[in-house]
Amino acid sequence: MAAQIAAHGLIKADDFELVSQPMPVPVEAQLLIRSVYLSLDPAMRGWLIDRPSYVPPVQIGEIMRGLAIGIVEKSNHPKFAAGDRVQGMFGWQEYLLSNGEAVTKLPESGLPFSAYLGLFGLAGLTAYGGLLEVGQPKGGETLLISGAAGSVGSLVGQIGKIKGLRVVGIAGTDEKCNWLREELAFDAAVNYKDDNYKKQLKAACANGVDIYFENVGGEILESALYLMNTFGRVVLCGLISQYNATAPVPGPSNFALVISKRLKIQGFLATDYSSKVKEMVSNFAQWHSSGQLKYRVDIVRGLESAPAAINKLFDGSNNGKLMVQLSDPPAAP
Amino acid sequence: MAAQIAAHGLIKADDFELVSQPMPVPVEAQLLIRSVYLSLDPAMRGWLIDRPSYVPPVQIGEIMRGLAIGIVEKSNHPKFAAGDRVQGMFGWQEYLLSNGEAVTKLPESGLPFSAYLGLFGLAGLTAYGGLLEVGQPKGGETLLISGAAGSVGSLVGQIGKIKGLRVVGIAGTDEKCNWLREELAFDAAVNYKDDNYKKQLKAACANGVDIYFENVGGEILESALYLMNTFGRVVLCGLISQYNATAPVPGPSNFALVISKRLKIQGFLATDYSSKVKEMVSNFAQWHSSGQLKYRVDIVRGLESAPAAINKLFDGSNNGKLMVQLSDPPAAP
Repeated sequence: MAAQIAAHGLIKADDFELVSQPMPVPVEAQLLIRSVYLSLDPAMRGWLIDRPSYVPPVQIGEIMRGLAIGIVEKSNHPKFAAGDRVQGMFGWQEYLLSNGEAVTKLPESGLPFSAYLGLFGLAGLTAYGGLLEVGQPKGGETLLISGAAGSVGSLVGQIGKIKGLRVVGIAGTDEKCNWLREELAFDAAVNYKDDNYKKQLKAACANGVDIYFENVGGEILESALYLMNTFGRVVLCGLISQYNATAPVPGPSNFALVISKRLKIQGFLATDYSSKVKEMVSNFAQWHSSGQLKYRVDIVRGLESAPAAINKLFDGSNNGKLMVQLSDPPAAP
Repeated sequence: MAAQIAAHGLIKADDFELVSQPMPVPVEAQLLIRSVYLSLDPAMRGWLIDRPSYVPPVQIGEIMRGLAIGIVEKSNHPKFAAGDRVQGMFGWQEYLLSNGEAVTKLPESGLPFSAYLGLFGLAGLTAYGGLLEVGQPKGGETLLISGAAGSVGSLVGQIGKIKGLRVVGIAGTDEKCNWLREELAFDAAVNYKDDNYKKQLKAACANGVDIYFENVGGEILESALYLMNTFGRVVLCGLISQYNATAPVPGPSNFALVISKRLKIQGFLATDYSSKVKEMVSNFAQWHSSGQLKYRVDIVRGLESAPAAINKLFDGSNNGKLMVQLSDPPAAP
C-alpha cells in the first residue's frame, strides 16, 4: 500500500492507494516473505510528515513503512529456510522480497504468534528499555503512566509492579481503568475524562511522582509535572495527543518546574536498547508464565483496513496492541 | 530591607521598604557580621512569588533573602573570630546577628574580595556543576550557551574551552559578543537581537549542538532544540526570559524533538553540587592564574540601590556578576 498524501490531521483512507502486483519471485540470495501481522504504531503518523527526523519521511508513491512479522515462503539465501519465523520493517504489503538484511529470526516462545508484536516486539522493548534504562526505578518509588492501557503503558505498569513500585495509570475510559486495577494490579488508575480528574490524580499520587512515563503530552504532561518529586525522572516515550496537530503545539507552561524540582526529561526510542532484547525476552517469558505480565492484542483483518484502523490509536478506541492480520499465522508454538 | 509586594512583572522600588534599626549586639554564642557584598541573582525574582518552590517564598514584611559575603565584626562564638571572612544567606541588610549556622568561612584566594561572589560563589558553582556534572562534556563536542555574557554563562564557556569543546555563545549586545570572542576566546558569539540571528546561529553551530546550557528560555530554547544533535544534553540552569511573566509561559513548541533526537533535559541548582566546592576553588584559582578563566563584576553601591539594580539582570544591562557593595571590603588578599 503506497502513501499518497502526507498532510496534517488524522490519516484518511484516500491518503493511501491499494496496488496489486504479480507475486514476486526470489532470485539468488533472496528470500520471499509472507507477512502475517503488521504492527500499527503512533510513530507512523510522524513518518508521514515531510520533515527531517530520526528516519526519513515516507515519500508519496513509496510503500508505507511498518514493522511486521511473517514466514519465509521461499529462500535462496544461505541463512534462511522456508518456514522460518521472521521480523523486520516489511512495510504495508502482503509479500516481499528481501536480501536478508535487517531481517531477524524470531526465537521460540511458546506463545501465540501475535505475541511477537504484542509482548516481545517494539512495545515490549519500549516499555522495558524506557522504564528500566531511562527511568532507573528504585523500589518503593511512585510510577505514573499516561496512556497506561496502551500496548506500551500496560507493560510499563506491570514491570513497575514487578520491580516494587507503586503504580498509577492514566487512561481514557472506565473500562480501561478497571482493567488496569483489576487485571494488571495497578495501585490506582484515573480516567482523564472525569471532571475531577486532577483531584483524583493528586489523591492517587499521595507521595508525589518519582517517575513519569509519558505517552500523551499536552495538559496531562502539565498535571504530571506539578506532581513530580524533587529529582524525578520524566521518561519521554510519546506525545500522542499532538501527532495530528495542524499547528505547532506549545510545550508545558510549567516547564520552569524542571529547574526548581531538578527533574530529568529524557527522550528515547526502543531501538536504542536493542542490546537488551535477549534479556527482555527471557524476563518477559518468565514473568508471563508466572502470571505477572499480561498483554492483549487488538487485531483487525486485511491490508485494506490499515488506514482506518491506525486512527484507533489517536482516539483511544483500541484495546491492546493494534495490528493488522494479513495472512494465517503459524500454529503455536 | 523588607519585601512588601510579591506581584508579577518587574520588581519596583516601592516593593521594598528601607528600615533603620539600632546596631544589634551579639549575646553568648552569637556573632555580629558586617556584610560587604550582596549578590543579586535572577532566582530572587522567583522567591518573591507566593507559591511552593524549592525554598519558601519571602513573605511580606520579612527581610529579603540574599547571598552575601562579609566580615565578622564581633564574636562570642567559639568557632569564629573578629576579622573572619564569611559567606551565607545574610539577606538584604548591612549588619546581622548569627548563631554561626550555615555561615561558611571563606578560604584564601589571593583575589579581590568580590571574587568570592564573581568567581567562587554561586555563579561559579552553577557553571562548574552544571557543565561538568549535568552536561558531561566530551572533548570536541559543541557547547552552546544562552545568556553567555552573564556571570554563569561566561564561566561555562571558559570551562568549556578548557575542556576542549567548541564554544558558541548567545548574548544581547555586540559589545558582549565581542567580549566573548576576543577576551574569553569563544569560537563564536551571536547577538540574538540581530535580524538574521537564526541563520548566524546555524552557521556558528555547523556540526550541531551536543550540549546546550540554557539560561534564557522562550524562543532561544526553541531555536537551540532545532540545532541539537542526537543524544544531546540540555543543561537547564535558568529561564530568565519568563521570570517576570504576568501569565503562564508556554514551553517550547518543538518539544517533540526531545523524543526523536533522544535528548536529555535536566534541571539543577548549584547547591546540588556543594560537595564539589573544594575541587572547584582549586581548579578555578589555577585556571585564573594561568589566564584561562576571567570574570568581571558589576558593583552598585548602597543597599537602597538593590531594588532598581536587580532589574539590570532582566534587561541584560549588567556587565558581569551583579552585586551591591554595602561596606568597605577588606584589603586583598
